[in-house]
Amino acid sequence: MELQKGKLNCITDVDGVKVGHVTLYEKIDDQDTICTGVTAILPHSGNLFKKKTHAASAVINGFGKTTGLVQLEELGLLESPIMLTNTLSVGSVMQGTLQYMLEENEDIGVSTGTINLVVGECNDGYLNSIRLQAVKPEHAIQAIKRASTEPVQEGAVGAGKGMACFEYKGGIGTASRTISADNKNYTVGCLVLSNFGKREQALFANWSKANLDTPDGSIMIVIATDAPLYERQLKRLARRSAIGLGRTGSIVDHGSGDIAIAFSTAATYDHNSNHTVESLSFIRDDHPVMGQLFQGVIEATEEAIMNSLEHGETTVGRKGRILDKAPL
Amino acid sequence: MELQKGKLNCITDVDGVKVGHVTLYEKIDDQDTICTGVTAILPHSGNLFKKKTHAASAVINGFGKTTGLVQLEELGLLESPIMLTNTLSVGSVMQGTLQYMLEENEDIGVSTGTINLVVGECNDGYLNSIRLQAVKPEHAIQAIKRASTEPVQEGAVGAGKGMACFEYKGGIGTASRTISADNKNYTVGCLVLSNFGKREQALFANWSKANLDTPDGSIMIVIATDAPLYERQLKRLARRSAIGLGRTGSIVDHGSGDIAIAFSTAATYDHNSNHTVESLSFIRDDHPVMGQLFQGVIEATEEAIMNSLEHGETTVGRKGRILDKAPL
Amino acid sequence: MELQKGKLNCITDVDGVKVGHVTLYEKIDDQDTICTGVTAILPHSGNLFKKKTHAASAVINGFGKTTGLVQLEELGLLESPIMLTNTLSVGSVMQGTLQYMLEENEDIGVSTGTINLVVGECNDGYLNSIRLQAVKPEHAIQAIKRASTEPVQEGAVGAGKGMACFEYKGGIGTASRTISADNKNYTVGCLVLSNFGKREQALFANWSKANLDTPDGSIMIVIATDAPLYERQLKRLARRSAIGLGRTGSIVDHGSGDIAIAFSTAATYDHNSNHTVESLSFIRDDHPVMGQLFQGVIEATEEAIMNSLEHGETTVGRKGRILDKAPL
Amino acid sequence: MELQKGKLNCITDVDGVKVGHVTLYEKIDDQDTICTGVTAILPHSGNLFKKKTHAASAVINGFGKTTGLVQLEELGLLESPIMLTNTLSVGSVMQGTLQYMLEENEDIGVSTGTINLVVGECNDGYLNSIRLQAVKPEHAIQAIKRASTEPVQEGAVGAGKGMACFEYKGGIGTASRTISADNKNYTVGCLVLSNFGKREQALFANWSKANLDTPDGSIMIVIATDAPLYERQLKRLARRSAIGLGRTGSIVDHGSGDIAIAFSTAATYDHNSNHTVESLSFIRDDHPVMGQLFQGVIEATEEAIMNSLEHGETTVGRKGRILDKAPL
Repeated sequence: MELQKGKLNCITDVDGVKVGHVTLYEKIDDQDTICTGVTAILPHSGNLFKKKTHAASAVINGFGKTTGLVQLEELGLLESPIMLTNTLSVGSVMQGTLQYMLEENEDIGVSTGTINLVVGECNDGYLNSIRLQAVKPEHAIQAIKRASTEPVQEGAVGAGKGMACFEYKGGIGTASRTISADNKNYTVGCLVLSNFGKREQALFANWSKANLDTPDGSIMIVIATDAPLYERQLKRLARRSAIGLGRTGSIVDHGSGDIAIAFSTAATYDHNSNHTVESLSFIRDDHPVMGQLFQGVIEATEEAIMNSLEHGETTVGRKGRILDKAPL
Repeated sequence: MELQKGKLNCITDVDGVKVGHVTLYEKIDDQDTICTGVTAILPHSGNLFKKKTHAASAVINGFGKTTGLVQLEELGLLESPIMLTNTLSVGSVMQGTLQYMLEENEDIGVSTGTINLVVGECNDGYLNSIRLQAVKPEHAIQAIKRASTEPVQEGAVGAGKGMACFEYKGGIGTASRTISADNKNYTVGCLVLSNFGKREQALFANWSKANLDTPDGSIMIVIATDAPLYERQLKRLARRSAIGLGRTGSIVDHGSGDIAIAFSTAATYDHNSNHTVESLSFIRDDHPVMGQLFQGVIEATEEAIMNSLEHGETTVGRKGRILDKAPL
Repeated sequence: MELQKGKLNCITDVDGVKVGHVTLYEKIDDQDTICTGVTAILPHSGNLFKKKTHAASAVINGFGKTTGLVQLEELGLLESPIMLTNTLSVGSVMQGTLQYMLEENEDIGVSTGTINLVVGECNDGYLNSIRLQAVKPEHAIQAIKRASTEPVQEGAVGAGKGMACFEYKGGIGTASRTISADNKNYTVGCLVLSNFGKREQALFANWSKANLDTPDGSIMIVIATDAPLYERQLKRLARRSAIGLGRTGSIVDHGSGDIAIAFSTAATYDHNSNHTVESLSFIRDDHPVMGQLFQGVIEATEEAIMNSLEHGETTVGRKGRILDKAPL
Repeated sequence: MELQKGKLNCITDVDGVKVGHVTLYEKIDDQDTICTGVTAILPHSGNLFKKKTHAASAVINGFGKTTGLVQLEELGLLESPIMLTNTLSVGSVMQGTLQYMLEENEDIGVSTGTINLVVGECNDGYLNSIRLQAVKPEHAIQAIKRASTEPVQEGAVGAGKGMACFEYKGGIGTASRTISADNKNYTVGCLVLSNFGKREQALFANWSKANLDTPDGSIMIVIATDAPLYERQLKRLARRSAIGLGRTGSIVDHGSGDIAIAFSTAATYDHNSNHTVESLSFIRDDHPVMGQLFQGVIEATEEAIMNSLEHGETTVGRKGRILDKAPL
């Protein structure tokens, strides 16, 4: 019995969440093609550093280079956009995101501390000439500035431009679920950057082995919810995304950096405060709505992956390599 | 493309692994029925304290009372049988296992240190009058002594006697897979104590909601392999069992203590040694056989759960409650 | 600049916290002496299962057998007394504590779930004939029932009866600190069961090597505070106790199971509730009082260890072995 | 009883380890001064990607932005230099290090996977105009290229140029210890980037409160050893560095990102291999030499911090701010 889908079946069904893409696609020569991008996910429209959100991560398989998780885990707070890009552009995207956040916050590094940046990645080196490092800091800034609460473009866009999923065209996918309790509606949304799997592993199709020699896969999973939850609970949500991932056929292979980050938009936490004591609200772990939130994460993750395939389009990359749209 | 099943599709396909059950089943009166037991899994036939095995655990959801994981994680070694029982009998089974190990090792607590005992549990309180604490230390000893390398009895036996899975009769299930590489065969086996899930969650059947009011579920998952792996790698295997669990329909619900323990029989580690330096062999993480081992864990876990249902038999417990055999 | 000590420099300075000891001391014959015990720490005087406390643990070195940490970490809640005893009596003390809690809570295992028991241990096998397992379940019950808010007896009492610290008589020690902020006072208290170290490691004395052949050491550290903190923050406190431990001279040696558990008495969490959403108050992590709480943990841990030595008394154990009172 | 110091009391006493600094110091105007740098630590002189080293990390307090720890923990391998810099230059240093590693490894991103970069940081914003981001990618490359096995320059150099320790001039410090066992010598070396603490917290001096308003502190601790150890054991070493840190007076304050990374040079692990099975040698955890290695880490960390102070020199930074050399 599936949960109800959100209004647009999209992570932006969680009120306030914004997503922005910058896509780079250019054939350089017979050898090289730029086929990559950046995707920014913003928990809300305000100043993310001044109004932090409760958040947590789950490292499903740690063959990945996501930055910012050390502090996220220590403090349970997200204070930047979540940025997604290709593996060799993490530094560049950090640079751009830093510049954006410094401009927005003149006190950082002057009268207050520094900032923790969360940048996730997958390896799009099958189609993209990843060594060219085509993603520049300004692309990160642009992705943040373009972010909107509108329906998210899926498939071969943003960070998803060059990604491969089950050896077909993967990339950006999103889905959402709503849950009712006590006359309240809670929404849980998921956005994935899918880049994992072999054809014969798919559980939802009967595909033959292809041996495309796609590089080590990965998936970045971003979970948003408007349910009041704090970091321990958000980690429980983030961990459930592994189940949704597994239901598509993933074996969470050795080389796949599978990382989930979950945040709640129900409350923000002020960077500046003259309070000693704060308070937070949260759904009881033993209330049935928690199980439904878990189920929502699982369903939304699974469907977001499917959507990344369904919205994929056949794409030509470096050396004339082609990733076909999945025959679904 | 599924991997090949092991010879008997059983955890004891991993050479040397032994399993023993003690089943307790007695109607006391209209209110109370004893419907529980103990299951012992031994990595090998020798002295488990003197010849330790490399091992690791994965806490998929920590609403559980398994003992011994703190030290298992620090040292990466298993030095006792893995014991399974009901939640309120963990202390009693510790006592029995301790007595057994003390008798086998006269030096413990005299001329050498103490011993770390691993006891896992699920809550069989739907059928079993769990407060009666019918499991006594001698039952644990008996389960260890009965352990053999023969095919494992599945279903409502041992610790599985009173367990419920998808609100049908669950309990003990086992399965195995074999992998070939470089003219060598590796086997990975799984034994589960299944006690989780609602009917409508099953992905392999179309079951209607039942609302049996079974208590907080759980699953204990034991993974054995003869592939040479050490604790970091065994933890990777243990974590993959969550995928197999999820493929049956589990949402890893709040109250479900889902815990996996993996060990390798490829080598033992001497308690007593006059060496300063030891060595160990291990499969490279980036070798394809590692992915196959992951897949083997996933498939064997999923099938072990299915086997726990298929071998279940309709069972009457306390207050005349009945758990039906699953209509598979 | 040290913080101010609590009123009685004792963990029971934290309002409501209760401690109870049962000490067992009997010479059996020339070989064997019973020299051990049980200590119970209760966060408050109410029903600990029905009114849980926010709590967390820190495994400083995991060569230990403490039970209950898996669930404590998943849920951030303590629902039983914290029990301390010798390593081979963990099962027995679990049994007694279970019996006590079952009697207090007739719904456990009938109409509600099961209970998570926290039992910590150190190895007192140098003085105590640990294989005799002299601690019985009723001793655990007795320790709980004796628990009071009065000043805690220190030294060779309760679980501390047979313990060795720096090869002198160790055992139970306690200390506390108070912190003022916004016209409020917060207290942090510490109780240790000290059983670690070699004489020449002591940083507070100039002791010569003794080579007493005391077994693998350990320390259990219990931190209580009335400051409003939740589990993520309490883990931060628990982890700071390692610094206090290290300042005495501990190198956190291989065989030393060094485990800290911290809880807050500022609020309780109802087991039964018809709320969907709860709320909690907590001190801001970036408020200076948090640093003072960290400092309080460090100072109280260090001093509790010193107090365990200062209140030690020369004790004769099995085989006529003697542990001297430390020459302080 | 202290262990013996290494030949030069330096991390480069561990054979093959190389360290390189780039220091940036320039007064721009009355407001701004560049007072920062980069330090590179290389486990050996070969190709670090092709010949990886066993490594592990310990997050003592996670208010820090170190990159690369997710993969380091999953695989237990270091495949890049360990780079240290200021907090807002992590992205820039990643970029430079990436460029260096790409040039050395033409197969990365073409015929093999990507690379995991480890960059640690402390906040030098008290003296350094950190928002200017003076550290460029080429400075990282230069630091790597300058790295040598010669005695390490300490104090206000490299990444240590602008750091503050106990509100005096901190920065780079190093120390080492040697241990003999079975006619073999093992060396453990430590290099710190010290940037933590208030004057009145120092345990080694009687300093008065200063209230310099230095920003959130931090310490990066790098441990090298030639003892054969693998990642689980190296994590044990890394965690012991917290004890050395605490002995100086640190309370591991809220805003202090205290992170340790340990690696062993005893063996390397080939990126390319046609083996299925590898082997590794390691010192037994229960051998006394392990305790001595722990002690070595503690002593070397404490002394490295002291050395960072002793080699500090009074430094003028932005806005004419001065950090004095510690009066030791």
